[in-house]
Amino acid sequence: MANSESLPVILIVEDETLIQTLVEEALADGGFETAIAPSAEEAVTLLRSGVTDYRALVTDINLKGNMNGWEVARRAREIDPAFPIVYMTGAAADEWASQGVPNSVLLVKPFAPAQILTAVSQLLNAAAQGQS
Amino acid sequence: MANSESLPVILIVEDETLIQTLVEEALADGGFETAIAPSAEEAVTLLRSGVTDYRALVTDINLKGNMNGWEVARRAREIDPAFPIVYMTGAAADEWASQGVPNSVLLVKPFAPAQILTAVSQLLNAAAQGQS
Amino acid sequence: MANSESLPVILIVEDETLIQTLVEEALADGGFETAIAPSAEEAVTLLRSGVTDYRALVTDINLKGNMNGWEVARRAREIDPAFPIVYMTGAAADEWASQGVPNSVLLVKPFAPAQILTAVSQLLNAAAQGQS
Amino acid sequence: MANSESLPVILIVEDETLIQTLVEEALADGGFETAIAPSAEEAVTLLRSGVTDYRALVTDINLKGNMNGWEVARRAREIDPAFPIVYMTGAAADEWASQGVPNSVLLVKPFAPAQILTAVSQLLNAAAQGQS
Amino acid sequence: MANSESLPVILIVEDETLIQTLVEEALADGGFETAIAPSAEEAVTLLRSGVTDYRALVTDINLKGNMNGWEVARRAREIDPAFPIVYMTGAAADEWASQGVPNSVLLVKPFAPAQILTAVSQLLNAAAQGQS
Amino acid sequence: MANSESLPVILIVEDETLIQTLVEEALADGGFETAIAPSAEEAVTLLRSGVTDYRALVTDINLKGNMNGWEVARRAREIDPAFPIVYMTGAAADEWASQGVPNSVLLVKPFAPAQILTAVSQLLNAAAQGQS
Repeated sequence: MANSESLPVILIVEDETLIQTLVEEALADGGFETAIAPSAEEAVTLLRSGVTDYRALVTDINLKGNMNGWEVARRAREIDPAFPIVYMTGAAADEWASQGVPNSVLLVKPFAPAQILTAVSQLLNAAAQGQS
Repeated sequence: MANSESLPVILIVEDETLIQTLVEEALADGGFETAIAPSAEEAVTLLRSGVTDYRALVTDINLKGNMNGWEVARRAREIDPAFPIVYMTGAAADEWASQGVPNSVLLVKPFAPAQILTAVSQLLNAAAQGQS
Repeated sequence: MANSESLPVILIVEDETLIQTLVEEALADGGFETAIAPSAEEAVTLLRSGVTDYRALVTDINLKGNMNGWEVARRAREIDPAFPIVYMTGAAADEWASQGVPNSVLLVKPFAPAQILTAVSQLLNAAAQGQS
Repeated sequence: MANSESLPVILIVEDETLIQTLVEEALADGGFETAIAPSAEEAVTLLRSGVTDYRALVTDINLKGNMNGWEVARRAREIDPAFPIVYMTGAAADEWASQGVPNSVLLVKPFAPAQILTAVSQLLNAAAQGQS
Repeated sequence: MANSESLPVILIVEDETLIQTLVEEALADGGFETAIAPSAEEAVTLLRSGVTDYRALVTDINLKGNMNGWEVARRAREIDPAFPIVYMTGAAADEWASQGVPNSVLLVKPFAPAQILTAVSQLLNAAAQGQS
Repeated sequence: MANSESLPVILIVEDETLIQTLVEEALADGGFETAIAPSAEEAVTLLRSGVTDYRALVTDINLKGNMNGWEVARRAREIDPAFPIVYMTGAAADEWASQGVPNSVLLVKPFAPAQILTAVSQLLNAAAQGQS
C-alpha cells in the first residue's frame, strides 16, 4: 500500500484449513498479502530461498511433521534476527516463556481478527525503527 | 475465531445507549463478542458469577448508581489481577493517574473505533504472555 | 465516535495524490477524520492557526518545498510537545534514528493500512494517559 | 548533583525505623536526598505544603493511622498526576493490580538496595521526558 | 534488605573464576546475595531442588559440560515461567534473537558492574508486578 | 569488566569542569571508563575518528561553540543509528520532544548519580539486544 510497490507479505504456517482461512482473511482485511506454508519444513524452505521478502511470520505451535512452531521461529530468527514472530496456540501457551523467542507475540485461541492485525502491525512498526 | 471455540467476549459497562451501540459495533467489527452491563453493580455481578469467561472490561467512568468506572475496574482486578481494563471518558481524564489501575488504557472521548480495537487487542495480547 | 462530538482529526502531510487517498481511506476505515496538507509549510500554518484541534500528524518525508517531514514534525512538537507523529518513508528510513523525534513511529513503504491505523491509535492512546 | 542546585529529594513514608534507615541509606548511596514521613497523613501534609519540591514518593503499604500506602499514592497523584511512586510491601503485593496507580513500581520485600535505586531512577528519568 | 528477612539470592552460572568474582562483587555491592553454579547441570539441579528461593539467573553462554546458557535459561523458565534471566556473552550476542527467552536481558562483554545491577533490578521489579 | 577486555567507554560532552567531574565520578563508580570532549565539535571528531569504540554519549545541551547537544547527538546517530544518547539539561528540557532523537534519555538537573548510571545502563542493555 501507500505506493505502487507490492503490499507486505506475511508468511502463515498452519496445517488446518479452517484456521488458514481465518488468519488469511484477517490479514487481508488489514491490507496484508499472505502466503501459506502447511508445515514448518516448507516455511523454512521458503524463508531460506529468499524468493519472496516475507515481512513477518505467523505460526501455529502444533504442526504436522518433525518441527513445531517454536522451532520454525528460531530458524526464522537465525536467518533474520529482527524477524517479527506471532505464535498462535490453544494448549501450549504456558510454553511461550521457555520456548518463545524474544520480542515475539503470543495469541491464545480463541482470538479475534483484530488481535492478529494489531500483533502483526505492532511488530512491523517496531522492526522498522530498529532497521533505521 | 481461529478455531471452533467461541470468540473472546468483552464486557462493556455503559449506560448510554448511543455509546453502547458504538462500542459494540467497533468491537464486533474486530471480531469480538460483547456483553453489556448498564451499571457497575451489574458488571461486578457478572464478573463474580463466572458464568461467562470475559476477557476484558471496557468501562465508562460516569455511571448511574453508586459505583463509577474507576471502582468497577478495581473490583475486576480483585477477581483477576491480570484483567485487561479500558476506560472511556470525556471529562475525567485527569483522574486516571490517581484513580486508574496499573497497565490500563484510557480513551478520551471523542475516540475512533480503531482506538478501542487497538487498546483491547494490545491488552489481550500482553495478558496472554503474562499467563504463560 | 463514542459521543455526539466530532471524530478525532488526523493531519496528513503528503503531496502525492495516490498516497493521500490511500492514507485517507485507511484512517477513515478506522473511524478517523482526516485533513490533507500538500506541503510542510501548509501543515505548519494549519497547526499554528489552532482552528482545528488536530490529534496527530502523519507525514511523508520527501515533500515539495523547502521543508521535509522531519522538519514539520519538529515544528509540530514545538507547538505541542506531546503531539503524536507518524512518518512514512521509502528511502529515508535510515535517517529516523538521527532526524526523528522521540516517541514517534516510522512506517516503511510499502505498508498495509492496518499498520497506519495501529500506529495512530497506539500514539493517541498513549498521549491520553500522559495528558491525565 | 550535576550543578550547584540541591539534589533531588525523595519522600519516604515509613513507620518502622529499621526500614527507614535502610531505604535512606540506599537512596543516599545513589546521590539522592531523603525526607521521612512516619505516617500517610504527614506525607500528604508535606506534599500539599509545597515547601519542598519532592521528586518521588517511596511508601510502605501498611502504615499506622487511617491511611495506607495505596491511599497516600492516590493523594500524591491528585496533586501531581506525573508523580513517581514506588511501593514497598511484604504481604500486600497481590493488591497492586487493583490498588496501585498507573506507572508505579512495586518492590516486594525483601529487596536489595539496587532495586530501589533502579526503581526511583527509572521513574524520574521517564517523568523528565513526559514533562518536556 | 528492607526488613529482617534474607536478601534476594541471585544464581550465577559461570565456570571462569575471574568472571564469577566480578559478577559476585557487582551484585553484592548492590545488596544482593549470590550463589555460584559452575555448570548448567548444577544450576538446573539447584533450581529444581527448591532448597533456596533464587530470584534471578545470571548465566554465561559458553559453559563446560553438555548444556549452554541458552539451555539452562529454558529449563529455569520451565520451572518458573516468570523467572528473570540475564545472559552474559562475548561472541554469541547474535544468537540471542533466536536462542534467548522472552523478556530476558543480554549483556555483551565487556560490561560495567552497573549494567548487571540495572539488568537484575529491572527484571526483579517487573516480575514483582506480574506476580501481584 | 567481566573479562580481560577493557571496560565500556562513555563519551561525555561537557564544558563545565564541575559537571565533568561529577558525571565522570558517577560513571566510574558504576564501572565505566569515560572520556571528556569539552565541545560538540571535538566530540564529533572523536566519534568519527573511530580510534576508541565509544559505547554511549552523555551530553550537556548548552555548549560553547557553534553546535549544541541536540546537534552532537544527531551527528552521533548518523555515524551509528543505534548509539545510546543521554542528554543533561537544566533549562532546555521542554525542547527534548522536538529536538531530541528517538530512544534517548533526558536527565533534568539537578539529578542524582544513580539516575545517570541507570540511564546509561538501560540504553546499553537495550542496544545489546538490537545488535544481536
